[in-house]
Amino acid sequence: MKIENEDWLDEINWNDEGLVPAIAQDVDTGKVLTLAWMNREALKKSASENKATYWSRSRQKLWTKGEQSGHSQLVREIRVDCDKDAVLLVVQQEGGIACHTGRFRCFYSQLDTSGWKTVEPVIKDPQEIYKSKA
Amino acid sequence: MKIENEDWLDEINWNDEGLVPAIAQDVDTGKVLTLAWMNREALKKSASENKATYWSRSRQKLWTKGEQSGHSQLVREIRVDCDKDAVLLVVQQEGGIACHTGRFRCFYSQLDTSGWKTVEPVIKDPQEIYKSKA
Repeated sequence: MKIENEDWLDEINWNDEGLVPAIAQDVDTGKVLTLAWMNREALKKSASENKATYWSRSRQKLWTKGEQSGHSQLVREIRVDCDKDAVLLVVQQEGGIACHTGRFRCFYSQLDTSGWKTVEPVIKDPQEIYKSKA
Repeated sequence: MKIENEDWLDEINWNDEGLVPAIAQDVDTGKVLTLAWMNREALKKSASENKATYWSRSRQKLWTKGEQSGHSQLVREIRVDCDKDAVLLVVQQEGGIACHTGRFRCFYSQLDTSGWKTVEPVIKDPQEIYKSKA
């Protein structure tokens, strides 16, 4: 998407590190896939290229989701909340796998009376996912 | 829900401020309602009382969603992501209004070629919402 100017980026309430949390939601199932972080450049790129790009806090660099795994997130819609300090992306999840563990999504652990329980299966072995694109 | 012990809370990767971002998703529509923050006590209370409780960073105190507005979030499911640094609550949104602006949800602004555009209506005047519970 081509946007007139960068006012929309100026309006975001970036945190002290210049970041904002970004939720990705699957367009087909409505399931929440991931929560990652974006800086200004990541959000701008996600909008202009229609492909989710985040800021990796651990590696301190931009990463376009799927650049290694092939599991890109095609951006269908970008929203911001009332305080303009959280972003929501509605995405088409390529390959049906959003999580680096090879599961559909990162939110695969559910709380029950004994603690966190894994409730979603591994669809593809991570070694296969990352080997194939190495 | 009564949980055996507090290991599940110890497993969370709280940030430097002792917080974790918490996404609330509507159980009926699947829509993402809010992103707020929880400390250990807020998450524990949300699980034990089945009512979403957050940590207000601006007021530096616990707040049970709906305590003023009546618009509580009844917790149906609690999930955590693969890195255990983000929480997802599936909730029943009381009153059908999650946002303090009187809208269904906080993510009511969508990006288009001219910037952020409000795409969801005010359901109830905020002055009415907060007056009625003052």
